Amino acid sequence: MVTDRPQSREIMTDLYELTMAASYFEQGMFAPATFSLMVREYPPKRSYMVCAGLDPLLDYLESFHFHPDDLEYLEQTSLFPDKFLQFLETLRFTGEVRAIPEGRIAFCDEPLVEITAPVVQAQLVETFVINSINLPTLVATKASRCHYAAGERQLVDFSLRRTHGMHAGLMVARSSFIGGFIGTSNVQAGKIYGLPIYGTMAHSYVESFDREIDSFRAFAKSFPDNTVLLIDTYDTLAGARKAVTVAAEMRQAGHTLRAVRLDSGDMVELSQQVRKIFDGSGFPEVTIFASGGFDEFKIQKILSAGAIIDAFGVGTKMGVSADAPYLDMAYKIVMYNGRPLLKLSSGKVSLAGPKQVFRQRDEQGFFKGDLIGLSEEEVDDSEPLLEIVMQDGKRLLPQEPLPKIQERFREEFRLLPETYKNLGGNPNYPVNITPRLQALQDQVKREISEKELGPV
Amino acid sequence: MVTDRPQSREIMTDLYELTMAASYFEQGMFAPATFSLMVREYPPKRSYMVCAGLDPLLDYLESFHFHPDDLEYLEQTSLFPDKFLQFLETLRFTGEVRAIPEGRIAFCDEPLVEITAPVVQAQLVETFVINSINLPTLVATKASRCHYAAGERQLVDFSLRRTHGMHAGLMVARSSFIGGFIGTSNVQAGKIYGLPIYGTMAHSYVESFDREIDSFRAFAKSFPDNTVLLIDTYDTLAGARKAVTVAAEMRQAGHTLRAVRLDSGDMVELSQQVRKIFDGSGFPEVTIFASGGFDEFKIQKILSAGAIIDAFGVGTKMGVSADAPYLDMAYKIVMYNGRPLLKLSSGKVSLAGPKQVFRQRDEQGFFKGDLIGLSEEEVDDSEPLLEIVMQDGKRLLPQEPLPKIQERFREEFRLLPETYKNLGGNPNYPVNITPRLQALQDQVKREISEKELGPV
Repeated sequence: MVTDRPQSREIMTDLYELTMAASYFEQGMFAPATFSLMVREYPPKRSYMVCAGLDPLLDYLESFHFHPDDLEYLEQTSLFPDKFLQFLETLRFTGEVRAIPEGRIAFCDEPLVEITAPVVQAQLVETFVINSINLPTLVATKASRCHYAAGERQLVDFSLRRTHGMHAGLMVARSSFIGGFIGTSNVQAGKIYGLPIYGTMAHSYVESFDREIDSFRAFAKSFPDNTVLLIDTYDTLAGARKAVTVAAEMRQAGHTLRAVRLDSGDMVELSQQVRKIFDGSGFPEVTIFASGGFDEFKIQKILSAGAIIDAFGVGTKMGVSADAPYLDMAYKIVMYNGRPLLKLSSGKVSLAGPKQVFRQRDEQGFFKGDLIGLSEEEVDDSEPLLEIVMQDGKRLLPQEPLPKIQERFREEFRLLPETYKNLGGNPNYPVNITPRLQALQDQVKREISEKELGPV
Repeated sequence: MVTDRPQSREIMTDLYELTMAASYFEQGMFAPATFSLMVREYPPKRSYMVCAGLDPLLDYLESFHFHPDDLEYLEQTSLFPDKFLQFLETLRFTGEVRAIPEGRIAFCDEPLVEITAPVVQAQLVETFVINSINLPTLVATKASRCHYAAGERQLVDFSLRRTHGMHAGLMVARSSFIGGFIGTSNVQAGKIYGLPIYGTMAHSYVESFDREIDSFRAFAKSFPDNTVLLIDTYDTLAGARKAVTVAAEMRQAGHTLRAVRLDSGDMVELSQQVRKIFDGSGFPEVTIFASGGFDEFKIQKILSAGAIIDAFGVGTKMGVSADAPYLDMAYKIVMYNGRPLLKLSSGKVSLAGPKQVFRQRDEQGFFKGDLIGLSEEEVDDSEPLLEIVMQDGKRLLPQEPLPKIQERFREEFRLLPETYKNLGGNPNYPVNITPRLQALQDQVKREISEKELGPV
């Protein structure tokens, strides 16, 4: 809930995190655990992921503490012993976080974040960790696909009205910027993240005037240097001709109509005809902005069919990652008290031990393949992707500016071989496991089988 | 962003709401407008919608005001004249809201909410209005489908880790409860909405002990009257046999093992074998709880294949409404200053005028069909669905308790003919337009065509 009242984030969690924590507390289990966050399987048509969401997660971990009224609520549930609630009162996150930086490209099975902390802490943050990274990664990836389809054309996030709540609206604005968008319609995201904000008028504005052209004139008067006229309320071509009239009036007054927006109809034909109307009337500087149900597929389709569009407002389908609205992302314990762990649940086997991802490149610098190894391994001719970003519960570096993260994405994306950018997907980027990591898996599986799968 | 710091909701909006407002202000356009919120088309496989999200929306409207630091941000954008920002300082929502109550069942094209207020106000709230109703309606509908598939079995919301942000997590907990769930794993939702909360242990808990059975014993000791053992970490049947051992120890100590949870594997075969193990060992009271990728389709499939499950944890696919992650929901101006309005944009024509929905029933009370008419119409033998819930910016009734809304849903769902509950969809529920509403459309379209579609 986004609200004028403060909302604590610590009980934004699944109840079982607290029941497990209570039991660990009772058992005196305070040894360090390492948890690993990864994606088990690509959603359809995906072959890479753009990392996003880390900074807000670090913010959460750094300020982690239970609020008195939350503890009061927990007491009212009668589920927890007083001693445990007293323990929660002073609990802070004191662990270490290793992560692949935001804006980098990663692949399935690779640990995106690894957290090492006393088991109660590392467990309690699980729900928030997954939630913080899941949607941002989905959206930065979806945005990068739109960016790929659009080529050099500009993209603006228009999704806020149909994101899943307001927090998602902020996550989407931030993550789509990381994935190559130039800004957002979301004013709060503009304020919080310093993102460029965009927007001019809706159909309701046009309709509330007696005549369409009156609405165009009124808007041009209010925003003489920032006017984008929405021309499809009644008929796009009639609207374009009225916009030409207003563009001429604006020019007369020393101003320039920036653009017109198309929001419905056959975008290929309409954009070509509208372009012709403006060029033919001596207004080649007026650009064409398109919105209405766009995603990477629709962008690619209309551009390859010859649509003449300068910029896109991309809304709902990007903001909810409509064709892949979730990642099969999990946060798995891989070590407790020095003992490497995995589970054998059918279809969900995890990899034991703290890990590192090593990226290998060809001579031009293009990505050739990744190796997942043990965190303490060294692999020749490769770059380790996970960096230590938090120690003893404190960030090691200041917050990164979003333009810097976007720049990192652009450079990474340039080095991702073309075949993996295919919108249809090509989930064959080579990700292998080092012999040492494999040996550890074999050993741990053998031990578990001996211990757990015999008769009780 | 869910945060310990207060977040204002008024600039959780698209920039164009503010630019339009500024222009209305400059033009002196303060007359009342009516906007209508409706869904244009069913998502795949849907044939009805469960209304949800109204109460948080009323909360927003009732407390609507711009915060000083938001106005400061708007000033920094240099987009707005000072006079307009001064006007925003004291702006409150003073309008009227008519809506179909939460928990009722509605259909496409029907106005779910109608807002009448001075046009600046009615426009400024657009983004929040759609965002407030879109996901809750999607999720209450998806939850009702799970509820239908599960029959009398209990359903718990397990989605928080993969909802689109934390606000969505709260919306999903609330909306799935409206759609028939018994509670949620989301602790914050338990606190804020008074919902029952559920949860016990994860695989990580089991793994962090030396042996699986040690983890079962430790949990039973911590929560002797609230133990659900997760038995699939290594091998489900081996896990079940260890759970029998622990159940016997618990019985010895005067307690009862409540349930075991299956989270992977072949749910049909495993649930039957686990049932046999417990029944055969004298523990018929231990119930079987299943989780892992459930939605209405998987629930229906495994139950019809003979799975023996008492309750389901339903997570990601419900929480993101995976097969239909957005509604084609729009908030359209239908009247300004007494003049009925519509737009003709291709594929997106709206219905002019403030409206009412009239529901007709057969002799047993089952829904027979709806009529959409003018708000001031009366239609014999029918029940009007939209009620006035806010006047002069103030709620007319106190907040409804969620169990009451769920009860309304259950009664409505009972009266929805079986054919529309089909999980494959049957979008043919009769929704027609009254002759008076149709006559108004014809008249407004004629006027617009004459005025707007000729030469400039």
